[in-house]
Amino acid sequence: MSTTIDLNADLGETTAGNPVADDASMLTMVSSANVATGFHAGDPHSIAATLAEAKSRAVTIGAHIAYHDPAGFGRRFVDYDPAELADETLYQIGALDALASAQGLTVRYVKPHGALYNTIAHHAEHARAVVDGVKAFSRDLALMLLPGGVAVDIAEAAGLRVIREAFADRGYNPDGTLVSRRAPGAVITDPGAVAERVAQVAATGSVTAIDGSTLEVRAESVCVHGDSPGAVELTRSVVERLGREGIEIRSAL
Amino acid sequence: MSTTIDLNADLGETTAGNPVADDASMLTMVSSANVATGFHAGDPHSIAATLAEAKSRAVTIGAHIAYHDPAGFGRRFVDYDPAELADETLYQIGALDALASAQGLTVRYVKPHGALYNTIAHHAEHARAVVDGVKAFSRDLALMLLPGGVAVDIAEAAGLRVIREAFADRGYNPDGTLVSRRAPGAVITDPGAVAERVAQVAATGSVTAIDGSTLEVRAESVCVHGDSPGAVELTRSVVERLGREGIEIRSAL
Amino acid sequence: MSTTIDLNADLGETTAGNPVADDASMLTMVSSANVATGFHAGDPHSIAATLAEAKSRAVTIGAHIAYHDPAGFGRRFVDYDPAELADETLYQIGALDALASAQGLTVRYVKPHGALYNTIAHHAEHARAVVDGVKAFSRDLALMLLPGGVAVDIAEAAGLRVIREAFADRGYNPDGTLVSRRAPGAVITDPGAVAERVAQVAATGSVTAIDGSTLEVRAESVCVHGDSPGAVELTRSVVERLGREGIEIRSAL
Amino acid sequence: MSTTIDLNADLGETTAGNPVADDASMLTMVSSANVATGFHAGDPHSIAATLAEAKSRAVTIGAHIAYHDPAGFGRRFVDYDPAELADETLYQIGALDALASAQGLTVRYVKPHGALYNTIAHHAEHARAVVDGVKAFSRDLALMLLPGGVAVDIAEAAGLRVIREAFADRGYNPDGTLVSRRAPGAVITDPGAVAERVAQVAATGSVTAIDGSTLEVRAESVCVHGDSPGAVELTRSVVERLGREGIEIRSAL
Repeated sequence: MSTTIDLNADLGETTAGNPVADDASMLTMVSSANVATGFHAGDPHSIAATLAEAKSRAVTIGAHIAYHDPAGFGRRFVDYDPAELADETLYQIGALDALASAQGLTVRYVKPHGALYNTIAHHAEHARAVVDGVKAFSRDLALMLLPGGVAVDIAEAAGLRVIREAFADRGYNPDGTLVSRRAPGAVITDPGAVAERVAQVAATGSVTAIDGSTLEVRAESVCVHGDSPGAVELTRSVVERLGREGIEIRSAL
Repeated sequence: MSTTIDLNADLGETTAGNPVADDASMLTMVSSANVATGFHAGDPHSIAATLAEAKSRAVTIGAHIAYHDPAGFGRRFVDYDPAELADETLYQIGALDALASAQGLTVRYVKPHGALYNTIAHHAEHARAVVDGVKAFSRDLALMLLPGGVAVDIAEAAGLRVIREAFADRGYNPDGTLVSRRAPGAVITDPGAVAERVAQVAATGSVTAIDGSTLEVRAESVCVHGDSPGAVELTRSVVERLGREGIEIRSAL
Repeated sequence: MSTTIDLNADLGETTAGNPVADDASMLTMVSSANVATGFHAGDPHSIAATLAEAKSRAVTIGAHIAYHDPAGFGRRFVDYDPAELADETLYQIGALDALASAQGLTVRYVKPHGALYNTIAHHAEHARAVVDGVKAFSRDLALMLLPGGVAVDIAEAAGLRVIREAFADRGYNPDGTLVSRRAPGAVITDPGAVAERVAQVAATGSVTAIDGSTLEVRAESVCVHGDSPGAVELTRSVVERLGREGIEIRSAL
Repeated sequence: MSTTIDLNADLGETTAGNPVADDASMLTMVSSANVATGFHAGDPHSIAATLAEAKSRAVTIGAHIAYHDPAGFGRRFVDYDPAELADETLYQIGALDALASAQGLTVRYVKPHGALYNTIAHHAEHARAVVDGVKAFSRDLALMLLPGGVAVDIAEAAGLRVIREAFADRGYNPDGTLVSRRAPGAVITDPGAVAERVAQVAATGSVTAIDGSTLEVRAESVCVHGDSPGAVELTRSVVERLGREGIEIRSAL
């Protein structure tokens, strides 16, 4: 019996010629690409280039939707009216899907970015707006979310397929939230530790919190970051270790 | 035998709650709505509201694509790389189509806005980029253009349906270009004169230039402006006159 | 003894040729202009035009700073890092002051706009960031604020002159907050009632809440809106009434 | 007798946390920093951080003004109305100067960025608009320009101090224009060759064109790029070589 895991990364964030990650390298390793839509980063032409790379590597495409805040890279909560957020969700998916379709690709899932991702774990109105926007585009789209948040419940109640996600390089509190980046243990940089975490998710769907307790998050996908120094090398060592352990990297969809 | 004419207007340009035109009123009169895509004006939520109004009036929808220059309302030439322009064309159509499809509408044509409209009448590379972007979305989309420009030839050579357009309230030079807004005769404000011009287009497809010569522009659609003071009243008097003359207002598609 | 009152209005919000208010008319009536800085609305050229009008009418100039959210017209809370907000405050004041200085004008005060205005009435960190940004530009700038909020205390503790502001056309709750726009009594549209409210502020600095109680807000300035239909006429009738009552309209500075 | 040369670099272009160059390292080596103003890149908070670094290194500050085109990183010509461009020039200088003044720094010069830099070498109306905007801020500001362009003549006729600039790592055509990036010889990557070119400018003010001819450009400053891979190392080797040759790196102002 073979164990599989989905590795996803945030890509397509090159704006005006300035890359944030090495998309081409990351796309040789991940199975799912969360592709920016231009609302927090990315412009149509560089997004299209990332999509072409993703196609050549048979990587599954998701729309990495965001609050419309390029100045803040989508990392700041913006107090949207929910109806606006639903329409912006729809707009972003449609824009990316057009770029993807022109290359024979299909957007298969949606992953909220940054502040939107974190907000809808507890902000039911924004969560509902995202779900509404996704469904308005297509009921066949999956939604990649933080396990345990209200967005998971709202999305599943609305009939959407949810992909629960874990973070390979982030520490978890015992309650399932991520350790704040200002606290010790927030980021894991040792390749072996990161790979071990991915292997654990692949085998059991669970992650280990900083106090040693086991969190049954039922994760199907693990996020690896492409935008930090050494990101490509870190990911490569994770991928190699998974290979040695016989864990196949494969989209959850 | 009944004569028909398509009346089109630029709508969906409300940004952040500040309307540019009275979309609801204009949509009771026109047969085609050039709906902004957010690149020169419009935000997804107000665009969606305009689409809903258009649907209730059975008005045909076009994507009013633009250079990405909200600060200049799309009225300034931007020296794009053609490959970027093609991808931005695709992005804009996809975004609008998603908003439209969610309401059961279909984007039927594309009309370039402002500087992009004028530029591609003579700038073959940008014209080709727009045509490429349109075709990448769908070969069934028509393209609404200024008669006589290079974009018409490029679009037709590429197999796209072209809707030649006349302007109800603008003076024409004998060579078919519009009289500069800085010159006398640029704008026609008398409702009777505007209506007469529309009737002429409906009957013959031609317009009369400022020197009295007849321009055989083969126009199928006439643009009426919704964003000037008195625009709604001017359009209403045009519509009434067309009614009296038995000219039916109907989409060219 | 003559009674005086400062009338202020939000101006300079024309973006890309699309006006939000009739700045020229409003500037014949108000004594203080809150001039946009381009972060929620306004572009440098139209801002400069408003400044020129203000100069010709000897109207006092304030910088109408905002969260950087043109898509939301500055009406949405954005969860800024305070250090970013302080620097953006400084940036905005500097930009406007350069446009003003080139015309021989001086920015005399700062008024936060929209969501920023409301947020700093209770969000101490953002209030402090605004105060820091203002002081970094000049300790001689006044800050126009909602009476009773934490920003007033923070600004005064920091040594800044505060101009307490009342709203001519908005209902007040007994606790001094504005009646929500979704509730009855939120907006006062009767010119006589608006004028009466301004006269009361001029005479006593207080406003009357919707339950009839008197709020001692010590207001020195009254905001009149220029961006609603009939705004100019409403303001004109207020100004005429103040004239009849011998109340002089004059900047608080 | 000691020879001196000004080394300048484009800095302050970090947007939303994503750096374009290693500002801190570059500021240990250059004598002048062209600091972005937010129109092509940079946000107020990261600009302020770059200014603080520049202050600690006693680097002279210039405003790196641009067409307002963040999506294009200011690299695309935008067909501005000159009056708009003059006001945007003023706005940008004022914004940067406020951030600088708060740290006790003064903006000493203005360098147009990207498409604006290249355009005003031949576009007299845009050149005049930039000169007007600079003078409206202060007649004491210098303007850093490409030698030989119309902007130099217009600026000097207007009484502005012009700093003629050479590019350390770009090939020159015999007519003084830069070799197109699409042609061979456009970019010089050999540190020795770059350093030699800087030394030549320092000693003689001239550069050698690709055909071996000498261009008497009277350059006082040399631009080194901070945004390419290996930029810091390349600059370091240039600086070391200048040190060995006894050429002092010092602002032209």
